[in-house]
Amino acid sequence: MDWFVVSVVVSLLSFATAAWLYLWVSKQNPGTKKTQEIGALIREGANVFLAREYRLLAYFVLVVAALILLFLPQPIWHGEPKRNLLMAAAYIAGSVFSGFAGKIGMNIATIANSRTATAATESMENSFMIGFRGGAVMGMAVVGASLLGVTGITMLTGDVALTLGFSFGASSLALFAKAGGGIFTKTADIAADLVGKVELGIPEDDPRNPAVIADNVGDNVGDVAGMGADLFDSHVASLSAALVLAVVLDRGIGKFTQMVFCYAASGLLSSIIGVLVARISKGADPTAALNKLTYITTAVFVGITAIATAVFGFSWHYWAAAMLGLGVGVIIGIATDYFTNDLRKPVQQVASASQSGPAFTMISGMSYGFLSVFPALIGIAVSALGAFVITNGVDPTSITDALFGISMAAVGMLSIVGMIISNDAYGPIVDNARGLVEMADLGDEALEITDALDSAGNTVKAITKGFAISAAGLTVIALLGAFLSEANEVLLAKGMELIQGFDIMNPLVFFGLIVGSAVPAVFSAMLMLGVNRNAERMVAEIHRQFEEIPGLKGGHAKPDYARCIDIATTGALRELIPAGLMAILVTLVVGFIGGVTAIGGFLAGNIVSGLLLALFMSNSGGLWDNAKKYVEAGNLGGKGSVAHKAAVVGDTVGDPFKDTAGPSINTQITVVSLVSSLTAGLFILFSIF
Amino acid sequence: MDWFVVSVVVSLLSFATAAWLYLWVSKQNPGTKKTQEIGALIREGANVFLAREYRLLAYFVLVVAALILLFLPQPIWHGEPKRNLLMAAAYIAGSVFSGFAGKIGMNIATIANSRTATAATESMENSFMIGFRGGAVMGMAVVGASLLGVTGITMLTGDVALTLGFSFGASSLALFAKAGGGIFTKTADIAADLVGKVELGIPEDDPRNPAVIADNVGDNVGDVAGMGADLFDSHVASLSAALVLAVVLDRGIGKFTQMVFCYAASGLLSSIIGVLVARISKGADPTAALNKLTYITTAVFVGITAIATAVFGFSWHYWAAAMLGLGVGVIIGIATDYFTNDLRKPVQQVASASQSGPAFTMISGMSYGFLSVFPALIGIAVSALGAFVITNGVDPTSITDALFGISMAAVGMLSIVGMIISNDAYGPIVDNARGLVEMADLGDEALEITDALDSAGNTVKAITKGFAISAAGLTVIALLGAFLSEANEVLLAKGMELIQGFDIMNPLVFFGLIVGSAVPAVFSAMLMLGVNRNAERMVAEIHRQFEEIPGLKGGHAKPDYARCIDIATTGALRELIPAGLMAILVTLVVGFIGGVTAIGGFLAGNIVSGLLLALFMSNSGGLWDNAKKYVEAGNLGGKGSVAHKAAVVGDTVGDPFKDTAGPSINTQITVVSLVSSLTAGLFILFSIF
Repeated sequence: MDWFVVSVVVSLLSFATAAWLYLWVSKQNPGTKKTQEIGALIREGANVFLAREYRLLAYFVLVVAALILLFLPQPIWHGEPKRNLLMAAAYIAGSVFSGFAGKIGMNIATIANSRTATAATESMENSFMIGFRGGAVMGMAVVGASLLGVTGITMLTGDVALTLGFSFGASSLALFAKAGGGIFTKTADIAADLVGKVELGIPEDDPRNPAVIADNVGDNVGDVAGMGADLFDSHVASLSAALVLAVVLDRGIGKFTQMVFCYAASGLLSSIIGVLVARISKGADPTAALNKLTYITTAVFVGITAIATAVFGFSWHYWAAAMLGLGVGVIIGIATDYFTNDLRKPVQQVASASQSGPAFTMISGMSYGFLSVFPALIGIAVSALGAFVITNGVDPTSITDALFGISMAAVGMLSIVGMIISNDAYGPIVDNARGLVEMADLGDEALEITDALDSAGNTVKAITKGFAISAAGLTVIALLGAFLSEANEVLLAKGMELIQGFDIMNPLVFFGLIVGSAVPAVFSAMLMLGVNRNAERMVAEIHRQFEEIPGLKGGHAKPDYARCIDIATTGALRELIPAGLMAILVTLVVGFIGGVTAIGGFLAGNIVSGLLLALFMSNSGGLWDNAKKYVEAGNLGGKGSVAHKAAVVGDTVGDPFKDTAGPSINTQITVVSLVSSLTAGLFILFSIF
Repeated sequence: MDWFVVSVVVSLLSFATAAWLYLWVSKQNPGTKKTQEIGALIREGANVFLAREYRLLAYFVLVVAALILLFLPQPIWHGEPKRNLLMAAAYIAGSVFSGFAGKIGMNIATIANSRTATAATESMENSFMIGFRGGAVMGMAVVGASLLGVTGITMLTGDVALTLGFSFGASSLALFAKAGGGIFTKTADIAADLVGKVELGIPEDDPRNPAVIADNVGDNVGDVAGMGADLFDSHVASLSAALVLAVVLDRGIGKFTQMVFCYAASGLLSSIIGVLVARISKGADPTAALNKLTYITTAVFVGITAIATAVFGFSWHYWAAAMLGLGVGVIIGIATDYFTNDLRKPVQQVASASQSGPAFTMISGMSYGFLSVFPALIGIAVSALGAFVITNGVDPTSITDALFGISMAAVGMLSIVGMIISNDAYGPIVDNARGLVEMADLGDEALEITDALDSAGNTVKAITKGFAISAAGLTVIALLGAFLSEANEVLLAKGMELIQGFDIMNPLVFFGLIVGSAVPAVFSAMLMLGVNRNAERMVAEIHRQFEEIPGLKGGHAKPDYARCIDIATTGALRELIPAGLMAILVTLVVGFIGGVTAIGGFLAGNIVSGLLLALFMSNSGGLWDNAKKYVEAGNLGGKGSVAHKAAVVGDTVGDPFKDTAGPSINTQITVVSLVSSLTAGLFILFSIF
């Protein structure tokens, strides 16, 4: 069985599914004129942001591609110019493929939102299906493009190191999409809430608020395009890391390499099946419906890979490692749910503490946020160790076996990512639909339905976010193995002594470890300060509009929505560049001081502190969000009570935590890991120690 | 030159200095009857807490000592029973010595507070001197006891591994004193502020507030006794780690061992000189006066050790390493000051962001908190690497040389700890004095003077806290070396293969690394939730008193202060036990699963994430405190403004950050490191992998 061909076929199948879903969604009722008008405003705003982001990204990608051409994998005057050229091309392809998938996802999301809103005036079931299928387009497009890219490069060149370049391209895009989109969305959200809800006491999504369209645009650019780019990035990185290790075991392209493609194709196929069987019965709970799809997909994947392993004689050890990763991913999702679900103790305790004022919302929320890292980190640690134990029997003398086992655990965890993205993109679509129902006056019944759909989206989002961070965690551990392997390839070629590992007691490693641990903290601080600065600019603009546009407060005039979108866009892009450059520059400084030895420690420190902070921020942010919703549902005095005011403060703090800084850390870790793998050769040539 | 004898002599000299200062402070005017009465209430409250804490601690110490007797350094049926007995005795001695020093420090602090307050009615200079000399008693007692204990054990037994037991005893006490005291002080502080300032609008330190005495007691038990125990712990641990490595280099007691004592004695002598020359001229700035003392002490230490190195032929490499540590400590202090000083951008920006409400106080404060870890972590990383580079020339084949260099950097950083403690303990004394001036109506002029003294205390405290955390960081790195050395001693005795280091690519190490990184997060969350729960209990009690005691609001009746102290005490001790046990149990679980290999990773992960979180929490807490003070000084609308209300929320969140969780993480790291070193033999015998 040629798994390359299978992978290509499954990729094309996922594109076909995406196309079919796209057409199906487009054919639904676009709704009243007003709905369509507002929908168009959101679509235009999203497109403006995406166009600007992609233009800026294009400059960035060209500069980096030029640097790759000159220096990577080795300086062009030392190595083979053709390989540098291919690497640069792979890098560009990575960003283009991911950008393309993101663009499709955004388009359909901004088509699906008004249709979901319109359908909500008739039935919950249809509304749900439009929201879900809209999200599934993104899921299918992203994973299809990712798998096609990785397979294409491997088939055409046989050089899996090039997939690291592809992965780096995807990471560059993710950095812009996730961090930039994250700043955009929270700028708009915070500014809209601050002036609208807090100062003027007008409802969320009130059309008089100049920031309201920007807020809805933000859901699309941050939560749809950004999230898609983030998971594209993780998926590619997991495959790339596994492939780099597989070819070492195979001594070329062989059975292990084929196995990676078999698992990736099986995962995508399972997701396609999961997407296609999606149904919701009358009156069913949408959260349960979404979770059921995840379980179906998981079960199909387990079945397919078991059959493939039996039929094609792959190793059961690695199958078990992949299943372990997948299982731990599901467990981490459940643990995340515990800390962010309003039926559970943490959310209720934080809501209750809010009765004593916002300081207690903060202290208790952060405390539960810190507690929540425990199950996830233990899960990651156990799956890494478990994969090692399971696969170490294969060849006890080789650490590469075990590292490959860990990378297969990451591949397993990320196998169902097509379904994860579908569920995740559903969230912002129904969130947008809810806004449209309100802005276009589609009635209370539709509002109730979209509220229920939105709430399911939030719950599922918290789970998938925990899943995504954990998957990224396991992936970067595998990338650490890929880095070692790349470094040794260079050392071998130069006839130098190979690196066996990174000893913590080696002060260069320890130096890297400490510096690496500081980077995610600084990176997230820079992003959050960026949101703060940007939100301040936007608040000033909203104030200006309310003062200068006569009749706006009374609803007799239209606000200048475009100006707010413009501020969010410009500010987001301006704020994200320094943070991204900081992470890359510190990596290069550590590498040129301490060489690959220090970088080994640096990556480990970066992973450890990055996972810790990402989980802390995402979970506490989700928790605050739901604590606010819990109070708004009428508990502890409901809207307007002391507890509510305090819970709103928590939610506002949580916003940049969970939607800007937390998930961007993922990308930061991957970027740094890939930069390290790619520049390993340079560090070996030019480092001080 | 016998440096053992010198150390003992210098220790006794510091006790003599402490005794002289104690008498001097006691002879000062104790003030009006009312001042004395309130002073007595605080003293009694503090003594009640300390008595209960020490009683509970005594049970804990006895249980642990019994376990040590049975199992450490090796199971009593495997090894030498006499050594187990000595280890248990050293452990008990460590906790008793530290407890004794803490008790003296608390006594004098509660004597000095009323005298400082009384002196403030006459002159700032005398008031300052009483506050400083009161604090210096603690500094002299702590460092004298620490050095005497370590020297005594080494002189009498020649077995430096026993100093690890002594250090563990000190850590056990620090865990209770720092974490328990931290919970106590913040319980009282938060509850007093919440009901007093926020609900009733009565000033801080208003005698009608039932929690006001508990609040002042808290300053003593948390900031005096707790801080003293914390630095006792760090100082002993730095010496212990250096000694364990020194005897490996010396192959017994020799020149390197002597050098450690030479540096420790020189540091204490420098601090004694610094304390004795302390003066403040009329109208001088108290902050500058305190900082000047630190610089004098540093200069004297540099001079003495340079002379000693030249005269007695110690290695200049290690001298340079110690100086590097000391220099980096000072630089980290300055960097901390930047992030917490209200003349600098971070505090002013956070205050300015507060104008948009508490959510922005939180986001910006946490962001700067995350940024603030960068200079400190870089400083620690550079001093560790620098010490390695400087000392690696000594013997390029031995890593022990380099690790000893790092431990000497830690010894250097902690050398002036006598002065650091003196400056630090000054803070709560003048803080208490400020409260007494208010409660005993000593007049506006005295209030102004104590306000100025208090403000200097806060500034210096932020610097010394950054210094203390960094010193602890370097110490635990050295302890990692000590752990390796202890593990190898056991392996050597059993004829097993020695451990060369801890390779990050080894999945057992990685497993430990990830789990270790989660522990400080969970530990601090447990403490903060403990503060929350305890503060809730206390708020309920204050409400009850205001309802049930007739005339309390009007000031015609006295509140039941003792009941509040009781709640804070019981709750603090109840909340700290689970957190401490969690840290120790996780260590044991990891050790019995993955053996010493996993523990190596575990300690590194624990250090990395512990330093990150401790610095983040301490610095953001200090920043919020000063942002509030900045607004209260009349900026951005002053007291009662929107910015002020928001800044108060920040300060309330910052309180458990900077005074409970942040500094307790230090102790948690040290405890875990020492538990690991002591149980290394057990892990080797009984681990699964």
